[in-house]
Amino acid sequence: MNAAATRPEDPDRLWSVDEHLSDVLSTVRPLEPIELQLLDAQGCVLVEDVMVPVSLPPFDNSSMDGYAVRVADVAGASEEFPAALTVVGDVAAGAGDPPHVGPGQAARIMTGAPLPPGAETVVPVEWTDGGLGGGPVSRMTAHSTAPDGASGQVLVHRPAEARAHVRAKGSDTTAGERALEAGTILGPSQIALLAAVGHASVRVRPRPRVVVISTGSELVQPGGELRPGQIYDSNSFALTAAARDAGAIAYRVGAVTDDADILRATIEDQLVRADLVVTTGGVSVGAYDVVKEALSSVCGAEVAGDPEADEHTEHREETPAGPGVDFRRLAMQPGKPQGFGVVGPDHIPLLALPGNPVSSYVSFELFVRPAIRALMGLEDVHRPTLRAVLTAEKALTSPAGRRQFLRGRYAEGEVAPVGGASSHLVAALAHADALIVVPEDVESVEPGTEVEVVLLG
Amino acid sequence: MNAAATRPEDPDRLWSVDEHLSDVLSTVRPLEPIELQLLDAQGCVLVEDVMVPVSLPPFDNSSMDGYAVRVADVAGASEEFPAALTVVGDVAAGAGDPPHVGPGQAARIMTGAPLPPGAETVVPVEWTDGGLGGGPVSRMTAHSTAPDGASGQVLVHRPAEARAHVRAKGSDTTAGERALEAGTILGPSQIALLAAVGHASVRVRPRPRVVVISTGSELVQPGGELRPGQIYDSNSFALTAAARDAGAIAYRVGAVTDDADILRATIEDQLVRADLVVTTGGVSVGAYDVVKEALSSVCGAEVAGDPEADEHTEHREETPAGPGVDFRRLAMQPGKPQGFGVVGPDHIPLLALPGNPVSSYVSFELFVRPAIRALMGLEDVHRPTLRAVLTAEKALTSPAGRRQFLRGRYAEGEVAPVGGASSHLVAALAHADALIVVPEDVESVEPGTEVEVVLLG
Repeated sequence: MNAAATRPEDPDRLWSVDEHLSDVLSTVRPLEPIELQLLDAQGCVLVEDVMVPVSLPPFDNSSMDGYAVRVADVAGASEEFPAALTVVGDVAAGAGDPPHVGPGQAARIMTGAPLPPGAETVVPVEWTDGGLGGGPVSRMTAHSTAPDGASGQVLVHRPAEARAHVRAKGSDTTAGERALEAGTILGPSQIALLAAVGHASVRVRPRPRVVVISTGSELVQPGGELRPGQIYDSNSFALTAAARDAGAIAYRVGAVTDDADILRATIEDQLVRADLVVTTGGVSVGAYDVVKEALSSVCGAEVAGDPEADEHTEHREETPAGPGVDFRRLAMQPGKPQGFGVVGPDHIPLLALPGNPVSSYVSFELFVRPAIRALMGLEDVHRPTLRAVLTAEKALTSPAGRRQFLRGRYAEGEVAPVGGASSHLVAALAHADALIVVPEDVESVEPGTEVEVVLLG
Repeated sequence: MNAAATRPEDPDRLWSVDEHLSDVLSTVRPLEPIELQLLDAQGCVLVEDVMVPVSLPPFDNSSMDGYAVRVADVAGASEEFPAALTVVGDVAAGAGDPPHVGPGQAARIMTGAPLPPGAETVVPVEWTDGGLGGGPVSRMTAHSTAPDGASGQVLVHRPAEARAHVRAKGSDTTAGERALEAGTILGPSQIALLAAVGHASVRVRPRPRVVVISTGSELVQPGGELRPGQIYDSNSFALTAAARDAGAIAYRVGAVTDDADILRATIEDQLVRADLVVTTGGVSVGAYDVVKEALSSVCGAEVAGDPEADEHTEHREETPAGPGVDFRRLAMQPGKPQGFGVVGPDHIPLLALPGNPVSSYVSFELFVRPAIRALMGLEDVHRPTLRAVLTAEKALTSPAGRRQFLRGRYAEGEVAPVGGASSHLVAALAHADALIVVPEDVESVEPGTEVEVVLLG
């Protein structure tokens, strides 16, 4: 990374959470937009303003089931002295060639049907005898069972002003107006508007494809049998689910054994379907930390390097991180060891998270989720945070100089820790809905103190 | 519906929103649970407690990269007077047969690797010379490049208490404990726990399959050309997206022409993949309201009826709604005409919503979304509501006796109306993020008044 190139080499330097996040976010660029069918674009971000090609509604139409008439013909009408009009036909919704309504005439009209030529207003069916010759009715007879409703005579019991119960052409939105602004996230009602103005597809940033790989020779697929020294792989499941939750299309590759060549080959193989690669494990100071071994800027040349130096340099100008993955120690708990960089000829971002389940999950929340949302082009990439009063039996302790993220349960302005600080406590994690943040300069938090809380899910 | 059977027939009765919602929710039963692979169960609800089959961790293991040693061998060790121990081998994570650690011996151990027999504690590599014969080191040399790190001598600079840096077997959760309670919604961290204790699949209520059908001879697929009197179909897109948003697997069938036979045939055809059917349009008092015509209890016998009277009766006891769809007028705006019932031999619930885009969307929010969430077995089926202060240029007006749902934008305790009350205003809907609720007995709301707000999305 450029950062490493411009600073004196100090492998033991502790980086802050904010420095690391900033490096990640300055490298990850929103994905190139593509044209997607409306329903495939749900949850995606518009990259350009969408204009209205046709006015909505495209024509004057009725907002009621009733009769389209002339104003003068129903002036002064009452139940005692109704206006008797000749029904010249039906105007159903979708009718392309509605009958002309002349003086003394009415057309039976349905909600959404175009106001027929000659008609000036609409009287609801409830203001008429429905053509039945009696008092006011509450509905029309179905055309299929009583086709004669489209002819004969109707008695209108109330007058109507001009254009009563008429939705004017363009009263919703008019051609040339901006329907939606660039940056809008497409939910159901935005999709409704795009469809209503006739757009079958829309230009958005696609959902990022995230490949999740866990590493560790100790990992067994759930459902399999554990031999001594083995545990079940949970990280690849948790992070695949979390990536989907963040809006990504996530692919779970599962556990790869601690072998640098196999890991490199697996990553190379997966790059074709990856906008982002996430690995867990193998990033610490141990002798078998193969992610670090396989991907660090020097050793990982086969995956990370770029054969053409020019392109290489050019890309460096675009993104702070040149090819290669940088491994760091962060001033945080859990999640101290972290790797981040780009791999492959297309410089796909890769985040290498620690292997402890809680560490990897917290690291995902802090760094991968914002990266996914940045790839989607979302402006707000972070979880909501708030202040809450700590409820606990005793003070929380936190190492000096580390930002600590404890698991907690939040309710109504209060947060309580769940389980301890240890990074292997998956059961406690599963019962938490928040992270309690203890800043770097705080070593103890008394119950009753206000703390920062990140709300999960 | 039974309701209709026990009450005097009054087709003009106005039903309250709450009555209708209550009828819908008392008919919709949670779907039968099925066994799903973990990642397919994301967002679903557990139907039974899940127990822990194996303790977690399954064995004592190291929380650090370091050396597994005996306590007595490192007692009193310091940088000046280090303890010199013979390295008998490596214990990597996943190691099935770790070396025995005798007096004066150490095994190099990796995070997560089993504590080897004979060892009583772990000293982190940072407390040692890493076998290099110098001062304290910050990391191990990679096994692949320096396999001799697993042998030779290590100098330990600090003492360690018994079981320091050791995660005890079962310290996360123990066999026989309850991992997750019935009713839990499975998010990433719950999936993590299930995987960690070895469950490859889990018994949950599946996501409901929702078939969305819009009706209307005036409807054209977006992207097509509009002829006079035609509009684009937006409801089928909006409600499919909204159904997914609510957690369903949604199928958009699209627009069906106003023909009762075609509609009946379409619904019959779709029932095989439906846990819930939603239609829009054709439910009002017009002469071409074919949903009503096709599905009402009498006319809709082919779809709705059940040939065997016994089964028919039996089902009535299970659900308040017997076969057939009941069409009602609700005391609400928008969304007055509504249909609800069950169709087909399997009594699949069907909600027939009005066709105006805003009416259908509001109806979906009020009735379909809770139905989908009830099918999923969720306890909390409703959107969050809150009180907010109305900001508007003039008072809002609302018809007496109707519960009105206006579109609004909410921010920081205040809500402002967006667009008017008219049910064809799709553009305004697309810029709203809340519904403003004006109760039945309120006809005017002054700016500055507190109102109830339903938060969307």
